[in-house]
Amino acid sequence: MTQMVRAAVQTGPRTIEMREFRRPEIGPDAALLRVEANGICGSDIEIYRGHLGGERDPFIPGHEPLGIIEELGDRAAERWGVQVGDRVAVEVIVPCRACEDCLTGRYQACRFRTYGHGVTGVDVAPSLWGGFAEYMYLSPTTVVHKIDKTLPVEIAAMYNPIGAGVRWAVDLGGVGLGDTLVVLGAGQRGIGAVIAAKAAGAKTVIITGLERDRHKLAVARELGADHTVIVDGDEGQDVVEAVTEITDGRMADVALEVTPMAAQPVTDAMTSVRHGGVVVLAGLKGRREIPLVTDLLINRGLTVKGAFGVDAAANRKAIALIESRRFALEKLHTHTFGLGEVGLAIDTLAGDAGDGAAIHVSVHPEYV
Amino acid sequence: MTQMVRAAVQTGPRTIEMREFRRPEIGPDAALLRVEANGICGSDIEIYRGHLGGERDPFIPGHEPLGIIEELGDRAAERWGVQVGDRVAVEVIVPCRACEDCLTGRYQACRFRTYGHGVTGVDVAPSLWGGFAEYMYLSPTTVVHKIDKTLPVEIAAMYNPIGAGVRWAVDLGGVGLGDTLVVLGAGQRGIGAVIAAKAAGAKTVIITGLERDRHKLAVARELGADHTVIVDGDEGQDVVEAVTEITDGRMADVALEVTPMAAQPVTDAMTSVRHGGVVVLAGLKGRREIPLVTDLLINRGLTVKGAFGVDAAANRKAIALIESRRFALEKLHTHTFGLGEVGLAIDTLAGDAGDGAAIHVSVHPEYV
Amino acid sequence: MTQMVRAAVQTGPRTIEMREFRRPEIGPDAALLRVEANGICGSDIEIYRGHLGGERDPFIPGHEPLGIIEELGDRAAERWGVQVGDRVAVEVIVPCRACEDCLTGRYQACRFRTYGHGVTGVDVAPSLWGGFAEYMYLSPTTVVHKIDKTLPVEIAAMYNPIGAGVRWAVDLGGVGLGDTLVVLGAGQRGIGAVIAAKAAGAKTVIITGLERDRHKLAVARELGADHTVIVDGDEGQDVVEAVTEITDGRMADVALEVTPMAAQPVTDAMTSVRHGGVVVLAGLKGRREIPLVTDLLINRGLTVKGAFGVDAAANRKAIALIESRRFALEKLHTHTFGLGEVGLAIDTLAGDAGDGAAIHVSVHPEYV
Amino acid sequence: MTQMVRAAVQTGPRTIEMREFRRPEIGPDAALLRVEANGICGSDIEIYRGHLGGERDPFIPGHEPLGIIEELGDRAAERWGVQVGDRVAVEVIVPCRACEDCLTGRYQACRFRTYGHGVTGVDVAPSLWGGFAEYMYLSPTTVVHKIDKTLPVEIAAMYNPIGAGVRWAVDLGGVGLGDTLVVLGAGQRGIGAVIAAKAAGAKTVIITGLERDRHKLAVARELGADHTVIVDGDEGQDVVEAVTEITDGRMADVALEVTPMAAQPVTDAMTSVRHGGVVVLAGLKGRREIPLVTDLLINRGLTVKGAFGVDAAANRKAIALIESRRFALEKLHTHTFGLGEVGLAIDTLAGDAGDGAAIHVSVHPEYV
Repeated sequence: MTQMVRAAVQTGPRTIEMREFRRPEIGPDAALLRVEANGICGSDIEIYRGHLGGERDPFIPGHEPLGIIEELGDRAAERWGVQVGDRVAVEVIVPCRACEDCLTGRYQACRFRTYGHGVTGVDVAPSLWGGFAEYMYLSPTTVVHKIDKTLPVEIAAMYNPIGAGVRWAVDLGGVGLGDTLVVLGAGQRGIGAVIAAKAAGAKTVIITGLERDRHKLAVARELGADHTVIVDGDEGQDVVEAVTEITDGRMADVALEVTPMAAQPVTDAMTSVRHGGVVVLAGLKGRREIPLVTDLLINRGLTVKGAFGVDAAANRKAIALIESRRFALEKLHTHTFGLGEVGLAIDTLAGDAGDGAAIHVSVHPEYV
Repeated sequence: MTQMVRAAVQTGPRTIEMREFRRPEIGPDAALLRVEANGICGSDIEIYRGHLGGERDPFIPGHEPLGIIEELGDRAAERWGVQVGDRVAVEVIVPCRACEDCLTGRYQACRFRTYGHGVTGVDVAPSLWGGFAEYMYLSPTTVVHKIDKTLPVEIAAMYNPIGAGVRWAVDLGGVGLGDTLVVLGAGQRGIGAVIAAKAAGAKTVIITGLERDRHKLAVARELGADHTVIVDGDEGQDVVEAVTEITDGRMADVALEVTPMAAQPVTDAMTSVRHGGVVVLAGLKGRREIPLVTDLLINRGLTVKGAFGVDAAANRKAIALIESRRFALEKLHTHTFGLGEVGLAIDTLAGDAGDGAAIHVSVHPEYV
Repeated sequence: MTQMVRAAVQTGPRTIEMREFRRPEIGPDAALLRVEANGICGSDIEIYRGHLGGERDPFIPGHEPLGIIEELGDRAAERWGVQVGDRVAVEVIVPCRACEDCLTGRYQACRFRTYGHGVTGVDVAPSLWGGFAEYMYLSPTTVVHKIDKTLPVEIAAMYNPIGAGVRWAVDLGGVGLGDTLVVLGAGQRGIGAVIAAKAAGAKTVIITGLERDRHKLAVARELGADHTVIVDGDEGQDVVEAVTEITDGRMADVALEVTPMAAQPVTDAMTSVRHGGVVVLAGLKGRREIPLVTDLLINRGLTVKGAFGVDAAANRKAIALIESRRFALEKLHTHTFGLGEVGLAIDTLAGDAGDGAAIHVSVHPEYV
Repeated sequence: MTQMVRAAVQTGPRTIEMREFRRPEIGPDAALLRVEANGICGSDIEIYRGHLGGERDPFIPGHEPLGIIEELGDRAAERWGVQVGDRVAVEVIVPCRACEDCLTGRYQACRFRTYGHGVTGVDVAPSLWGGFAEYMYLSPTTVVHKIDKTLPVEIAAMYNPIGAGVRWAVDLGGVGLGDTLVVLGAGQRGIGAVIAAKAAGAKTVIITGLERDRHKLAVARELGADHTVIVDGDEGQDVVEAVTEITDGRMADVALEVTPMAAQPVTDAMTSVRHGGVVVLAGLKGRREIPLVTDLLINRGLTVKGAFGVDAAANRKAIALIESRRFALEKLHTHTFGLGEVGLAIDTLAGDAGDGAAIHVSVHPEYV
């Protein structure tokens, strides 16, 4: 049994170094995860660059961990419904599970959560809180979801972007049988929303992107998108005009905005939906003020929802969808990196390294 | 039987003149209303000033009509469930009742509505479409609601502001037992929301206003508001600080924005609610862009709803609430005018005439 | 242009005769449908046998009509959004469209509906109310839905059983991504529910049937059912045991009961779902009392919903699903009959004629 | 500090004896409650009589405890948001707080709960699990709700029947502004539903009872019931006829059945509501089969919900309602007993002792 665990530790902006930690003792309520893979998302980029505050340094990043239960306490086994050897997906939020919000199912709003996988610093015992490591500690209140062990690692590791698609398009947006959805933004989460919406019976899914996203839009189409719209460059189309034409003037039932930093797509989302439609906002804008004609919301009776993370229900649905093997998810995966290449992996997703074609990127500790 | 009907006709911005129209023939599907009163709201001010476009001139304004069924077709009697002599409230929207939106209960989104009470021009037969008249025509697809005839006219005429309170705070906002609501804006609709929220079991209702709204806030308090906050002047308080203090840091469950034109209250509404809270926007801003930190919606998992008018369900609930006589609604009513004083009535609500103390203002054709 | 219209008229229990009616004049609000097909369902059997009361005799049965708009009033064209030559599905209920229930989207509860397609007698002008005829009258308040003209007639005619599946399993049952559904009963509506549930993302769909339904269960499996359970005969299984095994003790999220007359499946439905699960009842039992342990509902926190017909929203979703051509619906269709064979068609669905293998049966006026 | 704790221990059917237990040590996640009062409900009667199985004997009954936090662990203080000296209401269910059901807010369905206040036996350390004791142990996963300390003890102790009224009539039934509710059964929970429904804005509340419940119906009327119906005896009325008359044929929106053992009220509930109405069942029938015409549910599109206990959300709302002091709840309280009189208290509620006039009965350990 390994006694020391290797992990990638972020010590400051754009600074990651390999360190070793003592393998922790596991009590009856906790567990130890052997990390198989950890997906990377847009907030990893912000965290890596130090834009989300550095007060937690040093810490082990990686908040989309997938792995195998290596050690497991008796009570954890019963409560979580898992066994040693099971593969599980792990949620970033470690709620207190005792406050009123936790009790009523809104654990993501828990004000007493003190830990987070990929967030908590190494000074908090037993240090191994993040997914960019050989092993990760699962605390008594960690949230885990079992997932089919026979799936390829990089596919199973997609539970988070697919879960986001489920949560944002289906659970919050309410997309269902016969509906039309517009997704603004063609990253892994935008494409995850295309997949989730088609799985839930959407009639028409339209996805927008930039000229440089052509290959992502092609993947989106292969995974179910009915229409793609390029919004910039010489052949760029106006989103609202495109939706008007595609829907024969009926407009979309739901619009989902997942672009980073841009303001125009927020307005486009609002003008792309029908009277009484729903707009889901998930693309963070760096706390910028976005100018919005709020009268539009009133005159058209719209509902706008802020999409805060992915919850347990959405993760379960996403896992069921992945396990159904109905979609060719391998088309989403573009890059695999080893534990020593976390910085490169993040730069690759950001388009600062590699060919700019990254969609789903993951770090596999055992990858050479 | 009167053969000619007097009505106030708007022929251009700020220009209203008295005219006479022939009393219409009523077929089996229609009815004639003897107008008792017509309430005035903020959009009357905009319409009067010509800000909403003048292409419908000349027309009879007045879109909150209350009156007695004077003549009634057989089929209308059966379908509407009313009789000659009944008092009814009339909705502004005259839907087609045949399209898919109408069929599924979303008649306010009806794209085929061609008439509107207080909206349709006098050139459309039989001319008497508005409430500022002795009689008003009720078309086959007009929406009417029976209301207790023994209530004072000015109280019964409040179905619209109370209905707005019900629709916006309770139906859209979801305020119920034990909830905390912040209402930003102390006009008749804001106070209507206070009443509706308390009737629906809200624990704590906070309402904000300007220094010059002190008397309105006093009325709000008499009608159930637990806390009032003045936001300007020397003693002005920060809304978010006030809500934080009142709720001991838990923040409100729901915020309702009903101020005309102001931008700050929209942001205040968003920062006054808890994680997962609901913000209802009803205050029109003249199609201006409002700068909003949309990340707030995402990070706090908020839902923002645009409040489009008042629907049949809300009107029914408002009428039940008025008929319960549980609230001292007479405190809301401040001014009554005659049919020849429509312009003065509107200026009074706008604060351009009178003592600036107007809350609920109505025009009664029989008032001398 | 044909001046006389041939129709099958029921004059008493099990008595149908061909008659001719004058082709009606169509006003601006109405239309004339050239009937292409009319599906047959379980209630047609009851109606044919006279079990639902004979006071409406003589009348033209047929309440699942599909056809081409042959003549169309101007106003009907605008409101319904259709043109001459369009193919439409027609709902049985002809609501008043004026009462409060109609206004709030609950038109199926309309107390003022006086007509019904396949229900209203020939003594009510213009007589042609039913679908077993060459032409059918579409009244001003009839509900129609456009459907792709290029689909095979017998496939397009399935809007009703597929619509029932959508309404019962998805809209009422709430089946969605990752859910498990048990359907008790393997008729066309049970299989319609299998299709709708899979289209909406259900993870596991189980359908039960009798020994004699083996071929229906085989079709259900081809159309998406994950498991089939035969409940009688030598190899008969206990439903609850089967569901327990299939779900590894988690039980179903939703159960849908669609068997005619049987009592046991109602109890099986209730014991097949998890704590907090939903049971949808759609199988009529001839007004019999069914013995139920209501404590089960309480101790397990169940919700039981009575499934009343199919509404406009469900029909629209079903039509989108049919138009998607995603399911091999031709496997559902077993028998086509001509206008002169209505009695035989009904006996075939009932299993009183033919090989007992009927699933979807329809009458096509032009079928020789 | 007391070292020994007196408690009433049930050792078999109708057998309760006083015993002393060592005061437990309290760790950082737990607490000790000084019991002020413990309400009694219908299931206490069943438990006392041994009808719910005796395998847990000996145990300390009492599952509606109210008391003062006497000792409190640090972590419990933070998570529960309480301090030593606070008054709290305690829920019967002690969930695991770790499984998927707990995580998604459905903790009442928790399959891993091993303890229950008033349920767990004295052989499980530290024995003091029930409310009929001087002190009660609050385990790390116990659910507590703070409640105003200045309320009279017997009023604060009503959180459970009022919470049931909130959960059953308002949260499950959906009763709100303008609605009509029929409550079948006039016990403390039936009256609790009257109070909750009126607090939530119900327009009309009708409550039924037996001839011998006349005094309860009188209390119900004082607490807000608009109509009372006696269903037996010489002046007994048919429930459905009474509701028809009171509602002018519109029928109720919601019916709540809370009678013990009777079958007829279940059918009455179903026939008292309008098309599309909701029926909530909360009255246990001893696992008896109740004959029901399920076709009624289908033909009228009804929803029937089993009411399983009271959850945290409902308890919070009930506590807000009690703290509002809006209702004269002292009228509900009829009997107070001491710790040595648990059997008599239960017999009194059952009507087997005393004057048969019991509505709310509670045991106060300090009562002499």
